Amino acid sequence: MVESVLDDISHRRFNPLRGSYVLVSPHRTKRPWQGQQESPSKTSLPAYDPACYLCPGNKRAQGDSNPQYDRTFVFVNDYSAVKEEQAPYEPEHEAGSAESLFLQAQPVTGKCYVLTFSAAHNLTLADLSPAEIVPVIDAWTEIYTAHLSPRSPLAAAAPATRLPPSSAGVSVTKPKEQYRYMQIFENKGAAMGCSNPHPHGQVWTTSSLPEEPAAEFEQLKQYRRQHAGRHMLADYAALEIEKGERVVFENEAFLVVCPWWAVWPFETMIISKTHKRALVDLNDSDKQMLAEAIAEVTRRYDNLFETHFPYSMGIHQAPLEGSDDEIEAAYLHLHFYPPLLRSATVRKFLVGFEMLGEPQRDITPEQAAARLRECGGELYRKKLA
Amino acid sequence: MVESVLDDISHRRFNPLRGSYVLVSPHRTKRPWQGQQESPSKTSLPAYDPACYLCPGNKRAQGDSNPQYDRTFVFVNDYSAVKEEQAPYEPEHEAGSAESLFLQAQPVTGKCYVLTFSAAHNLTLADLSPAEIVPVIDAWTEIYTAHLSPRSPLAAAAPATRLPPSSAGVSVTKPKEQYRYMQIFENKGAAMGCSNPHPHGQVWTTSSLPEEPAAEFEQLKQYRRQHAGRHMLADYAALEIEKGERVVFENEAFLVVCPWWAVWPFETMIISKTHKRALVDLNDSDKQMLAEAIAEVTRRYDNLFETHFPYSMGIHQAPLEGSDDEIEAAYLHLHFYPPLLRSATVRKFLVGFEMLGEPQRDITPEQAAARLRECGGELYRKKLA
Ligand SMILES: O=P(O)(O)O[C@H]1O[C@H](CO)[C@@H](O)[C@H](O)[C@H]1O
Ligand SMILES: O=P(O)(O)O[C@H]1O[C@H](CO)[C@@H](O)[C@H](O)[C@H]1O
Repeated sequence: MVESVLDDISHRRFNPLRGSYVLVSPHRTKRPWQGQQESPSKTSLPAYDPACYLCPGNKRAQGDSNPQYDRTFVFVNDYSAVKEEQAPYEPEHEAGSAESLFLQAQPVTGKCYVLTFSAAHNLTLADLSPAEIVPVIDAWTEIYTAHLSPRSPLAAAAPATRLPPSSAGVSVTKPKEQYRYMQIFENKGAAMGCSNPHPHGQVWTTSSLPEEPAAEFEQLKQYRRQHAGRHMLADYAALEIEKGERVVFENEAFLVVCPWWAVWPFETMIISKTHKRALVDLNDSDKQMLAEAIAEVTRRYDNLFETHFPYSMGIHQAPLEGSDDEIEAAYLHLHFYPPLLRSATVRKFLVGFEMLGEPQRDITPEQAAARLRECGGELYRKKLA
Repeated sequence: MVESVLDDISHRRFNPLRGSYVLVSPHRTKRPWQGQQESPSKTSLPAYDPACYLCPGNKRAQGDSNPQYDRTFVFVNDYSAVKEEQAPYEPEHEAGSAESLFLQAQPVTGKCYVLTFSAAHNLTLADLSPAEIVPVIDAWTEIYTAHLSPRSPLAAAAPATRLPPSSAGVSVTKPKEQYRYMQIFENKGAAMGCSNPHPHGQVWTTSSLPEEPAAEFEQLKQYRRQHAGRHMLADYAALEIEKGERVVFENEAFLVVCPWWAVWPFETMIISKTHKRALVDLNDSDKQMLAEAIAEVTRRYDNLFETHFPYSMGIHQAPLEGSDDEIEAAYLHLHFYPPLLRSATVRKFLVGFEMLGEPQRDITPEQAAARLRECGGELYRKKLA
């Protein structure tokens, strides 16, 4: 296979989803490492921590108390990056002036939520069974639905759901303003800026369309135009299944793959095998399949270096509001961006050349996928116990 | 001033140099921090460390010995990310096939150098005087010159220099192939993936034009076309000098500014006040001014949190080879990307939302510039000594 030359030579791979490049230098993992080591993540946390602001019944930073929730729980972030209301900003720069060219700013409003994945302080997605992950997917779907524009073609598909009071002490009501986009994500582990091990993710909803989904929507729309309405990620998933070498796991509905153009050493994507615009397009069986895919990725990650594997992950799907064209081109997928490279304590730094030149990776995605394929089976912590 | 509204509200700023956005949430620094802390960087290193592979006279990883150099010293990276020679790669994908769309790779050749900034193991750029930084700028200029395409209009400007034997044990000879681009950079500190405190930077030279300079050249060319041949960064520097609020330092030839669109908390740019395409356009007085600007930034950084302030920095300038249009639009500037946010041990993480949505910052560039303006004067370590 001609591709195997790429195990030994430096090359650049193209990412058609973002329209960008990554430099791959497979021989570079031979470098000795004398630099920073991450502390391996603490084990043996208690199931309930009285000092944790996410545990059921505890007090939060700004005085509110969490309910005695038993599954997921959602609340407005006490330190939201964007807010529903703020002072207006109307710059008075003359058209064509240097100010109007160089000092461009637009106000951004929005709403930020925190969502716990479990009442237990010491469980992560990797510890949960697919059946226990389904409620998390349900909560994501419900938050998304509650913010969906009534003008979106997706509104018809969306069940008129509301988070059940058992799971959400604060009900997610439609904000006054219609926002453009919702980013659902999880930062896991201290190496990814997460300040609390209690399993949780975030949801940031903004009046602007952020850069990353904007770039993807452009590429997805262009692909459809150039390929008779076909979907890029459906075609890509089919090719990866045929090739096999970058596949980590698949079930009927979802593929887990180390994408050809991955930047982070063990970066993966979960891709729907058929066109789904957003979470609301999933039926119950699809949700179980997605839960299984999430369980498989996170468990394999933890097994890889026998550690609580840090990552940032998030869902890319249709905007809350957008053109019909954009919503139809949107294609549900999840990105996992994990920093570890060699062991539980040695990470990849995307620094100098990466910041000033372009992203660079050491091991190939094919090598990463092979390692992750071998890491299936029971969670290492359960075997130790 | 209407801009001061932006100290309190969430907004998006536009970066005309990259054509991208950053989300600014000034109120967010109020969050309590329970997450990862960096270890404050070690002080009191010896001037010579027998275990350091960069110190004069010592042995390197692959067996070569460093000369007894006394200033700068350059050698080919023992673990280069790109190499001058490698096996050929000619993918055999049929035009229009899924492989040709999704599995795109191009071989990249090139040469990577390491450049020490001083013979002393325990000095950093912040410890060096401008006069001691001039040799580093000379070395950069000479490495650049040695790789410049004879077809470049810059070749006429470039002195036919070679690194003096006193500073370089390995002479930088023109590689067999003409490369497209040279990225000069420094990763400083363990938080930025630097594995050795001996003051040094890197030079990666590649057959491809990396993403970041490519994006900048597009924006710079477009600005010239739309503004009667004027240069974006000359106009921008003039505006910042007029406004003052983001200026950290200036001398006759260079401006140090926290750019309007900065992503990292204390990100700065050093911008030439007049159009210089590359280091070879600088005369001796310009080089002294640049050395002073580098000394001012790095010293202020260290003074800010009284620590060895980590950062990645690098030089953006004309490509080694390119169209006349691209080379003429190129505009010498340096970027400093430092991760620290609140103290010597608390950094900003560009993670979940930043990776999946868009870059987000907390303090405003105006607040950062005000802090850095106050940090002038002697290096804190010298006062302690
Ligand atoms: O070459 P070094 O210093 O070993 O490596 C460092 O800088 C490189 C260039 O920015 C990065 O690719 C590495 O991740 C980082 O650890
Ligand atoms: O909101 P948190 O968890 O306090 O903060 C974390 O996630 C945010 C969103 O990715 C980042 O902006 C912060 O830098 C990071 O520390």
